Amino acid sequence: MSRGLLLVISGPSGAGKGTVCDAYKKNCENHIWNSVSMTTRAPRAGEVEGESYYFVSREEFKAMIENDEFLEYAEVYGNYYGTPRAEVEKKLSEGTDVILEIDIQGALNVQENTTEGIFIFILPPSMNELRNRIIGRGSETPESLLTRFKSAYNEINYVNKYNYAITNHTVEQAYQDLICIVRAEKCRVTRVSNEILTLKEEKL
Amino acid sequence: MSRGLLLVISGPSGAGKGTVCDAYKKNCENHIWNSVSMTTRAPRAGEVEGESYYFVSREEFKAMIENDEFLEYAEVYGNYYGTPRAEVEKKLSEGTDVILEIDIQGALNVQENTTEGIFIFILPPSMNELRNRIIGRGSETPESLLTRFKSAYNEINYVNKYNYAITNHTVEQAYQDLICIVRAEKCRVTRVSNEILTLKEEKL
Repeated sequence: MSRGLLLVISGPSGAGKGTVCDAYKKNCENHIWNSVSMTTRAPRAGEVEGESYYFVSREEFKAMIENDEFLEYAEVYGNYYGTPRAEVEKKLSEGTDVILEIDIQGALNVQENTTEGIFIFILPPSMNELRNRIIGRGSETPESLLTRFKSAYNEINYVNKYNYAITNHTVEQAYQDLICIVRAEKCRVTRVSNEILTLKEEKL
Repeated sequence: MSRGLLLVISGPSGAGKGTVCDAYKKNCENHIWNSVSMTTRAPRAGEVEGESYYFVSREEFKAMIENDEFLEYAEVYGNYYGTPRAEVEKKLSEGTDVILEIDIQGALNVQENTTEGIFIFILPPSMNELRNRIIGRGSETPESLLTRFKSAYNEINYVNKYNYAITNHTVEQAYQDLICIVRAEKCRVTRVSNEILTLKEEKL
């Protein structure tokens, strides 16, 4: 059985990364596993252990850091967030694709900590559209809007660290691009070596 | 405008390369240009200049070899066959994808003569099926059948020189794989750099 693909998906705020990933996951259902992050922050109302996050103490988290048990982790406003390595590895070795929807710094950390991973960046169709989408969320003050927009603008510089860039003109087109990237990656010669071996060993 | 993709497609006899390429070309119509080979052999009944082949004299062909005007060429049973570089280059620079359906030796020559090219190998689902397909053509003597089969068997060793391998279980699945490979390759960060530049330069 072929090893699953590790899909690492990032993009600036407002590019629509979440919507594209949701459409993709809905389409794939059992063939994809959505990695669940671990955090030391307290659960919020409605958050479910093992779905929203794995909630652990600072001590537990730090012990896991010591044991190199994270694919990536970061401390944000005093709370730790990270992706535990073991469960991702288990799914990949079972042949299940894993999707990691993660910020850019996290993605770069994953790059440093594994030799695998298909790094996909979601781009907005235009900066104007990006601004409209951030405004459309309606939850921003003019100041925070400007901050988010500037940050998104800078984040686009990191696209060169990725393998693929999907421009999110429409969700339908963007998640179809994602489906094709996965299907194409499964045709890479390096990934079908088992099939080729079977072919060569076939008794006639 | 983005440069077209150079798709180099090979596979052993009986794997169904021709059928897969035809299905793909039919689906893409204007978006793909099928490279036409040049040869020094005489036209056969029904062959059309510029469609089947470009027919030229040995002198013309040799002069073009001298001028490095071929992406690849070979001499087979005293006749030259080759892919003229100029027309392929023209189509690629116009943004049209080019499909080169070519034998393995030709594909390896293309690899040596360009820095681009997406190399795709069409595999049979099994060696048994490959044998059935060769027999199914009905045009082989038992001896030539054995020769073709042994040759196909050896050719599979070259798959490691390619970027992608498509197993031709059904034509429908195989050409959909090909469509996805092309769509994914168009999302490669190295190929969308113009779009990213436009995004970064956008005045707001």
